[in-house]
Amino acid sequence: MIRSAVRPGSYHDSVVLMQLQRGLAALPGVLDAGVVMATPANREMLAAAGLESDAEAGPGDLLIVVKAESGPAAGEALARVDSLLSLRRAGGGQGYRPHTLGAALRQLPAARWVLVSVPGRYAAAVAGEALDLGRNVFLYSDNVALADEAALKRRARERGLLVMGPDCGTAVVGGAGLGFANRVRQGPIGLVGASGTGLQAVASHIHSLGSGISQALGTGGRDLCGEVGGISALQSLDLLRRDPETRVIVLVSKPPEPAVAARLLAAAGATGKPVVVDFLGLAPPLRRLGALHFAVNLSEAAELAVRLSNEEEKVEESPERGGGFVRGLFSGGTLASEVRLGLQAFLPLSSQGHDILDLGADEFTVGRLHPMIDQDLRLRRLRQETEDPAVGVILLDVVLGDGAHADPAGELAPAIERALCGRGRDLEIVALVVGTDEDPQGLAEQMATLGRAGARVCRTVEEMVDAVWRRLAPGSTAVVEEGSPVPLEAIRAPVAAVNVGLESFYDSLAGQGLQAVQVDWRPPAGGNEKLAALLARMK
Amino acid sequence: MIRSAVRPGSYHDSVVLMQLQRGLAALPGVLDAGVVMATPANREMLAAAGLESDAEAGPGDLLIVVKAESGPAAGEALARVDSLLSLRRAGGGQGYRPHTLGAALRQLPAARWVLVSVPGRYAAAVAGEALDLGRNVFLYSDNVALADEAALKRRARERGLLVMGPDCGTAVVGGAGLGFANRVRQGPIGLVGASGTGLQAVASHIHSLGSGISQALGTGGRDLCGEVGGISALQSLDLLRRDPETRVIVLVSKPPEPAVAARLLAAAGATGKPVVVDFLGLAPPLRRLGALHFAVNLSEAAELAVRLSNEEEKVEESPERGGGFVRGLFSGGTLASEVRLGLQAFLPLSSQGHDILDLGADEFTVGRLHPMIDQDLRLRRLRQETEDPAVGVILLDVVLGDGAHADPAGELAPAIERALCGRGRDLEIVALVVGTDEDPQGLAEQMATLGRAGARVCRTVEEMVDAVWRRLAPGSTAVVEEGSPVPLEAIRAPVAAVNVGLESFYDSLAGQGLQAVQVDWRPPAGGNEKLAALLARMK
Repeated sequence: MIRSAVRPGSYHDSVVLMQLQRGLAALPGVLDAGVVMATPANREMLAAAGLESDAEAGPGDLLIVVKAESGPAAGEALARVDSLLSLRRAGGGQGYRPHTLGAALRQLPAARWVLVSVPGRYAAAVAGEALDLGRNVFLYSDNVALADEAALKRRARERGLLVMGPDCGTAVVGGAGLGFANRVRQGPIGLVGASGTGLQAVASHIHSLGSGISQALGTGGRDLCGEVGGISALQSLDLLRRDPETRVIVLVSKPPEPAVAARLLAAAGATGKPVVVDFLGLAPPLRRLGALHFAVNLSEAAELAVRLSNEEEKVEESPERGGGFVRGLFSGGTLASEVRLGLQAFLPLSSQGHDILDLGADEFTVGRLHPMIDQDLRLRRLRQETEDPAVGVILLDVVLGDGAHADPAGELAPAIERALCGRGRDLEIVALVVGTDEDPQGLAEQMATLGRAGARVCRTVEEMVDAVWRRLAPGSTAVVEEGSPVPLEAIRAPVAAVNVGLESFYDSLAGQGLQAVQVDWRPPAGGNEKLAALLARMK
Repeated sequence: MIRSAVRPGSYHDSVVLMQLQRGLAALPGVLDAGVVMATPANREMLAAAGLESDAEAGPGDLLIVVKAESGPAAGEALARVDSLLSLRRAGGGQGYRPHTLGAALRQLPAARWVLVSVPGRYAAAVAGEALDLGRNVFLYSDNVALADEAALKRRARERGLLVMGPDCGTAVVGGAGLGFANRVRQGPIGLVGASGTGLQAVASHIHSLGSGISQALGTGGRDLCGEVGGISALQSLDLLRRDPETRVIVLVSKPPEPAVAARLLAAAGATGKPVVVDFLGLAPPLRRLGALHFAVNLSEAAELAVRLSNEEEKVEESPERGGGFVRGLFSGGTLASEVRLGLQAFLPLSSQGHDILDLGADEFTVGRLHPMIDQDLRLRRLRQETEDPAVGVILLDVVLGDGAHADPAGELAPAIERALCGRGRDLEIVALVVGTDEDPQGLAEQMATLGRAGARVCRTVEEMVDAVWRRLAPGSTAVVEEGSPVPLEAIRAPVAAVNVGLESFYDSLAGQGLQAVQVDWRPPAGGNEKLAALLARMK
């Protein structure tokens, strides 16, 4: 016997809903109960749990479904919904609770942080209010529009404030855990992450290895998409760059968009500190790039960071800056694609700008010898590229061995020499030599020939990618180019905060012995969105 | 002054074409010359080199373009095309050259290998003839149809023969280099690769580290796509499994299709030897999975292999086999996606079979508490999954810390116990615990509670993925399930071979002191495809 009820467009704290559901399920004769906002996903889940209801209800409506032994039992349960809903959550030591954010901040002016965990559709407005009041925001709420996120973050950047989130699950700021946070030792490792449990896993693992963290700054999962452009991540890297407690940085994120990745890694490189990077699911084919160290997973990120924090690593400033596009003219397909993947970590590749060509690909070899035998095509392209003043770096591979060209370096050298003569230090040619000291061409001679012609000679793809990184990575100029830097005070202890939303987050702040105020927040017009819109228009 | 000529549908050895181009360019008054099969890509390249021609010519036609100081000079050059084309390549020590593969093999019956490097459109027929004559094929040619590749490889597998390629650039078999091959020390490391220069780079690096290789078996770049299904790679792994010289295996390839990857890694695991895997551009978030070690790039693959070959690693047989689908019920999004990526390396995931759910995703949290606070939804799903007899493994995360559920393990334990009670050893529940010993829930207590309930408790994603691997990876049953195994004699020294195509490959075999015969190959009907089709129909 299944019965349901709908409360249209009404708002209730998630904790209250959980308690309602448990209250209903505990009533005599009731087998199961479900209480959800009637989104398609939630209704599907109810159905899967045997609590299907055909009641008319939209995503903004509260849907209550009861499965009972009998009709009367179900009816009685539903009749108690309103009284159960009116029950306030028990406990909570705080006495008076301000009803507005403004009042809360007057009560606790030292609060530099506002935690926001109200439902997504109200969250941007509350976060915006916090920014207007000059406070940094920890925005736990999800289901916030991407455009709202971008707007909030731009506003924050203008004012030297930080917005962590939306959908930011965790942070540790000045030793205080915000949202979900593990209790970890203070230490030399600063974390930045577009990932909640990722940060928690790294922080916990660092703790279990005997080290500790200085700060853990969340950005929300969408910070690194093109629309937002990594604003929070860049601000966070800049904060950790200036933070004297932070000796090693860990950057955890889902694979960012290429243009954002480029800016992010440049900023990471510009911190002048060792940075461990874990792009979940997109490990570039590199272990290291200057002071950047790439990890393949969360636990490795933690282990690397601890190891680096125990070393007295000197991060050397690279003196070899330059510009121009990178053009690769490869004879080996796999070498080309490994170089491409390595560069993609920090350069957006396109056929107009930076580009890596595999001249041994099927399309180039119809009725033509492979470029490992016949370099004619490559020599032509080399001439073309060197004549293009927009090109700054040319990458070549030279593959030795039986079956290959008898003297590839000898044939390339005059072309390289001519190119470098004409362009000077404005152009760099990097050659990757694959071969052994037993190869018929003579490994040492081939390398010497290329070197004499002026090429920089590498033995691994990683070395080659590193050479490009050293030339093209921007220097430690200001990482946050727009807006104002976030003052270090934002992440200094003692932390005081105002909490708007989930009371468990207030409890957690209080449990850590921090100064905190809970706002007795209600949605505008009691959650009636039509009325709220009307009221907003009347303002 | 640019002039061009076309030789319709005619075949010429690539070396002859290269010599024609060089011959033309060296004539008096000639500034530049281009000789290509008139494919769109080749014409584009000519145009880019300032050798544009609007002559009517198709991909099967030979296009000759000359740029000269004057009209007469260009005309004179073009008039010499036919005489230049008729010049045979100088040198080559061999006297009599058989005109057919059959004749060549009668001349050198010990040849277990046939090297094929004729143009793509003829290559499948030559390779098929070699298989019919009971020989293994090294197929260098590219531009071979995918369907032809699949058919050739199925045919080879039936007969216990190996086809390396099409587009196989390199191999080392019984110490003999085929195609492009670096001279490397013999040693304990066997390579399998769907990548030519990838294999060369790994082999050269192993040599430079002082170690050496037993075999290097190429498969061609498309072997791991769904249509071909990794036939050659699976045969190669099986060969190296049985080869007593091979102590460590390196597997290099572009990211295979998920179903192929699953079979491949199972086969790698079943070799009973340590295997280093480098899926170019798709490093799973794992360093290790049983005896499989994942490298992020070519040089790391070489370094890992050398290190492993110096260790006396015991590859333990995992006793814990089981079956069933894997279902993950995660509260942490990043944990879910790292587990998903790890499993994807060897399991094809789908919502019907193996599946990893992030219950903290936006779609599940509208008007509902996060599963790190409220486990109601997860407990329901857990009950559902355990009742499904097709499910064999359930993965859970338990994230501790401030703000999270006060006793997540305590709430999960009864459900876990009930599930395992009902299903017995048929079901396994693995829980990943993220937290520190200072967390309010008590890390040790939470782990103990889960363990007592019967769950396997992990501390890292890698451990969790490894647990699934141990249960689901098939045992060392025959890796090549269909066809006949390739006899070890195929890769034993001394190697003798017949070469059809590029003479430089013959020179390379002869230069290594190997027995070899060059076939004086001509395309059917002199390259006239219409006539060839007619002749074929008359057979």
